Amino acid sequence: MTKNELGIVETKYFTCCEPPHEIVLKSGDKLGNITLAYETYGTLQEDKSNAILILHALTGDAHAAGWHEGDKKPGWWDTMIGPGKAFDTDKYFIICSNVIGGCQGSTGPSSVDPKTKKPYGLTFPTITIQDMVAAQKLLIDHLGIKKLLNVAGGSMGGLQAIQWPIQFPDCVASSIVIATNYRHSAQQIALHEVGRRAIMADPNWNGGDYYGKTIPASGLALSRMIGHITYMSDELMDEKFGRKLIAKEKKASGFSPQFEVQNYLKYRGDSFVQRFDANSYLYITKAVDLYDLEEEGTVMDAFKNVHAKFLLISFSSDWLYPSYQLKELLKAIKANDIDVSDVVINTKYGHDAFLVETKGQKKAVSSFLERAYKITRGKR
Amino acid sequence: MTKNELGIVETKYFTCCEPPHEIVLKSGDKLGNITLAYETYGTLQEDKSNAILILHALTGDAHAAGWHEGDKKPGWWDTMIGPGKAFDTDKYFIICSNVIGGCQGSTGPSSVDPKTKKPYGLTFPTITIQDMVAAQKLLIDHLGIKKLLNVAGGSMGGLQAIQWPIQFPDCVASSIVIATNYRHSAQQIALHEVGRRAIMADPNWNGGDYYGKTIPASGLALSRMIGHITYMSDELMDEKFGRKLIAKEKKASGFSPQFEVQNYLKYRGDSFVQRFDANSYLYITKAVDLYDLEEEGTVMDAFKNVHAKFLLISFSSDWLYPSYQLKELLKAIKANDIDVSDVVINTKYGHDAFLVETKGQKKAVSSFLERAYKITRGKR
Repeated sequence: MTKNELGIVETKYFTCCEPPHEIVLKSGDKLGNITLAYETYGTLQEDKSNAILILHALTGDAHAAGWHEGDKKPGWWDTMIGPGKAFDTDKYFIICSNVIGGCQGSTGPSSVDPKTKKPYGLTFPTITIQDMVAAQKLLIDHLGIKKLLNVAGGSMGGLQAIQWPIQFPDCVASSIVIATNYRHSAQQIALHEVGRRAIMADPNWNGGDYYGKTIPASGLALSRMIGHITYMSDELMDEKFGRKLIAKEKKASGFSPQFEVQNYLKYRGDSFVQRFDANSYLYITKAVDLYDLEEEGTVMDAFKNVHAKFLLISFSSDWLYPSYQLKELLKAIKANDIDVSDVVINTKYGHDAFLVETKGQKKAVSSFLERAYKITRGKR
Repeated sequence: MTKNELGIVETKYFTCCEPPHEIVLKSGDKLGNITLAYETYGTLQEDKSNAILILHALTGDAHAAGWHEGDKKPGWWDTMIGPGKAFDTDKYFIICSNVIGGCQGSTGPSSVDPKTKKPYGLTFPTITIQDMVAAQKLLIDHLGIKKLLNVAGGSMGGLQAIQWPIQFPDCVASSIVIATNYRHSAQQIALHEVGRRAIMADPNWNGGDYYGKTIPASGLALSRMIGHITYMSDELMDEKFGRKLIAKEKKASGFSPQFEVQNYLKYRGDSFVQRFDANSYLYITKAVDLYDLEEEGTVMDAFKNVHAKFLLISFSSDWLYPSYQLKELLKAIKANDIDVSDVVINTKYGHDAFLVETKGQKKAVSSFLERAYKITRGKR
């Protein structure tokens, strides 16, 4: 283990709302027996003032940093979380939990319904970003933390980072919102929709009832291929693949991949199928599409009871969540006299920049967190 | 019929290369018994100096303007072609032919192979943009036209408009290249690839052998849905659909469309299936992906024998074929001392702008054609 590494970490599980207890979801449906997979890094101070909740993206999981035994690569945000890193585990206690609706240790459509003893499938209730946040709050309560120093996340994690201080205004001191929107645009809904259609068009999807049978691998892989195109910029794809051929011969008949980019997408699609549940993809993309800060008034109104400070980060080449969308959010937060700043990081990495553009993010995140920490301690 | 309308028009058919004659395709494969569907509008002058060949996009056809008996809407470029329009049929003789590889009257994978008496399916040879142009040249010869005043097209039609003066430098006086690229980028290949995968993942595709059986409707519809997202701009989609709901109730469980944009995509996908052949979609998207002006040298080299004048048109909100790509082409053409100009039209219509942004295009096209016509006649 080198100086900047967390080393081996472990996923933990928190279960609550055991029968007959249930939580009421935003839809009005009830859900009981909820398990959340989570990991923690660093040490919680005695006064519990240094806790940060990391919120993952669509297909992320609780394993944000460090290594599991046998891992070929570290957690998905290991570049940002660890000793001396942006989310400095020498200073802060970092928590990351897998969302409900997911399939990586938390309760979702592939979980067994305690009432029927069978996997939920499509009988799983509609999940919203608000429900994900509500479930995370149960975990934070369980850890005995009254107020989070910070919540932070990119993409779908960014939606949760927006929602946390709105839903629990007294429980969050600051929020870092990265590469996201405050309500999905028509284009963003459309891009999710084709991914969902790809899954549902696979005969093996079988109305969501495929557990213990053949999974809808080809549909799920296709939805991931579509996703990957939207995560990369035009510039990056050209630099990485251009028109490089796999085969020497261009005139190959048939429709197997001949350009490297085709092979890359196929590889990403196929490997995704190994780790993700198709129904979870449906539920979680729907949760993102449904999120709408304008649902009950203006975006400005949504922040009227919020005290948290905000940092908004977007990326110049992110065409899936273009910077102008967070500029609109910035304006709405500012209009509430809330302490908010924004950074647009110049990068070729597209939407994926939130995972790889460490340098620019570290600078912005470190100083924002330090300031938030000082203010929080000053208030004690 | 009003003053600006062509009225009723008819598709004609030209057949050549009847057995034992065959043309040699770019791949080296041979293809015989070629039929091209085409339409003409306006009158060919006696000296045949006023002929313009219109080149259609991916899923376009020969019916570019006017009305067929019973049509609910006119040809796909009726806003641009007709009396007094950009391509003024009072002055010019307009030809539009469906490409080979297609399915709207021209020879393609759904045609019957004269050797086997069965539809080609995947035994149809690989088709390239160069082959499409070669087949069009046979039609132009058949019409007795030695030199086209102009070739013009958008998207895939734009590739043919680039290729025509390169392949037949003495047979084209000018070219209008709209909303395209001189070689597909990795992102453009990737977007085509997911469309192809959607078709091939449909069990009814059956390795391309589905004629007379159930067609791969769901796969083909999905590929069209993906396509449609890329044809519209973020701004236009938000203006047109935003987050408008179909149902009053947002909490509807299940995954049927609830936003209007979902319904719109579904409608476009389903109606596409009625008019297009899945195998043609595979062959034609592959032809576009394969086209590469850098195949045998630099882009600049490709134009070394070209005499035609060029007009390049792109659109500010076209993210599928961003303007910078035609700027690169402009530079390469200019470096050959060729008369070339470019226009970037400011519009919210995205890639579809070439079909709907009539005003800006008319201005550029009309004056370019007038100049080309004068120069051509001056040379006589």
